[in-house]
Amino acid sequence: MTFREDLKTYVENINKMLEQALDIMTGYADYLVDAMRYSVVGGGKRLRPLLMQESNKLFGEPSKELPYFMAALEFIHSYSLVHDDMPCIDNDEYRRGRKTTHAVYGETTALLAGDGLLNYAFETASKAFDITDDPAKCGRAMKILAKQAGIMGMIGGQAADVKAEKTGETMTEDMLLYIHENKTAAMIESALMIGACLNGAGDKELEDLCEIGSKLGLAFQIRDDILDIEGDFEQFGKPIGSDEENGKLTYVSLYGMEKAKEDVDRLSKEALDGLKRFNKRNEFLEELVVYLIDRNK
Amino acid sequence: MTFREDLKTYVENINKMLEQALDIMTGYADYLVDAMRYSVVGGGKRLRPLLMQESNKLFGEPSKELPYFMAALEFIHSYSLVHDDMPCIDNDEYRRGRKTTHAVYGETTALLAGDGLLNYAFETASKAFDITDDPAKCGRAMKILAKQAGIMGMIGGQAADVKAEKTGETMTEDMLLYIHENKTAAMIESALMIGACLNGAGDKELEDLCEIGSKLGLAFQIRDDILDIEGDFEQFGKPIGSDEENGKLTYVSLYGMEKAKEDVDRLSKEALDGLKRFNKRNEFLEELVVYLIDRNK
Repeated sequence: MTFREDLKTYVENINKMLEQALDIMTGYADYLVDAMRYSVVGGGKRLRPLLMQESNKLFGEPSKELPYFMAALEFIHSYSLVHDDMPCIDNDEYRRGRKTTHAVYGETTALLAGDGLLNYAFETASKAFDITDDPAKCGRAMKILAKQAGIMGMIGGQAADVKAEKTGETMTEDMLLYIHENKTAAMIESALMIGACLNGAGDKELEDLCEIGSKLGLAFQIRDDILDIEGDFEQFGKPIGSDEENGKLTYVSLYGMEKAKEDVDRLSKEALDGLKRFNKRNEFLEELVVYLIDRNK
Repeated sequence: MTFREDLKTYVENINKMLEQALDIMTGYADYLVDAMRYSVVGGGKRLRPLLMQESNKLFGEPSKELPYFMAALEFIHSYSLVHDDMPCIDNDEYRRGRKTTHAVYGETTALLAGDGLLNYAFETASKAFDITDDPAKCGRAMKILAKQAGIMGMIGGQAADVKAEKTGETMTEDMLLYIHENKTAAMIESALMIGACLNGAGDKELEDLCEIGSKLGLAFQIRDDILDIEGDFEQFGKPIGSDEENGKLTYVSLYGMEKAKEDVDRLSKEALDGLKRFNKRNEFLEELVVYLIDRNK
């Protein structure tokens, strides 16, 4: 199997798992489940669950608790996009080349679908306690998940980003790095750390993976900013130049294209080198890192 | 100590605990922490954490994990109010006699503050894994928390309620009970079940407490509907008659005032009888149930 074939299979399996997890009958709230499903199943690279799955492999055979946490992380990612796209934040009509949740279902349903997905993330992760032989390990994974997604992680980064945009305050280097570290990298770190945690990795290994995730996350975000300028709408799935049009300050506008590209190369190389230092190698994971940085969408 | 004195002390302790839990330094996201704190510390009966604390006492000495879950439940309750009040749902400017979060901080911040609180609820609960001797028990409590707050619980009820209001479809008895059972009662059930779970209660006891919580929750909601018609603005903290003005269908409008009052009495008596059947009695909890039903606000 080539990397591309493996990737395709893995993503298909993740998509199936996500659809199954969202196959819920509620009675009067079914329309909300539809909106939640629409928000999740419409594509996406499934980067975070993939990274979790592959990080888990660095420390042994696949853990049986893994699917619960992979789905949870993707639900959190999905909810953050649904709320981010809403009229009171970015007011985006398109995401990944298709209509955003509020554009299809209206603002009220999008608000509740985001809430529903965030809560369902923790509900799904908590089901791992039913099947685990090691509840302490699951508790540790739950704590990582919640912290990295929260006010000291993704939500904190989102809050800082939104404030900078809405108030038009001058973006400093420190502020931009805070936003990228928290809004983007925290969830990548979370993926790598939870995967490892579920296979019994120790504190030092989790720290190393957090640092690798931080570098990979920053490289990924800068690559996104570069694609917003140089990318192709068909490939990228959202209007090109939308950041610039919205007057949004990015890594590229702050440091220039040349340094941005250099930093992507340096950070992704450092992340790769970090991965290679573990006892067990995971070639797919290493190729995935390269793929994520070389992507055109 | 009288019931009222105990109640005052307990609520003060809960308020202190909530404020401590929200004493977080984030750097660029501090404005969001302010909005989260405003949404939580502005009063409220602290009914859910109180019920959890007292249900825990039915099964032994206070569990050390209790404060984490008490805070978590109140954060979930608070986030639900913040999002519920937003322009795209109820568009309420006042709650508990003070300005709602979006009225003070704007819609964008209110959206993120609600997200922040929901996530922080699970983050706070997950900290119990650091101090517990029984991670399986905490995992079980986490599962109850997530399920009762989610699409099969509170969010499901909220979704059904919002849909009925926005589409103006005819409210049936079945639909109204679904809404009350999920939107209101699910969190009361959660409080009683988690308190018991943290002191090692078995499945049968949790089932009984779920049923008691369901009755208490329904009685509490009907009492709320009655107060909306007969209450006093100063006491109740929101404009009287607002449900009627909004054309909102309630238990009272569906069944009439007389049956509503009869049902409150019957349901609260059944809840009380249920509580008295446990081996250990908790007089404060029994008085709390009476107090909640006799309240004027």
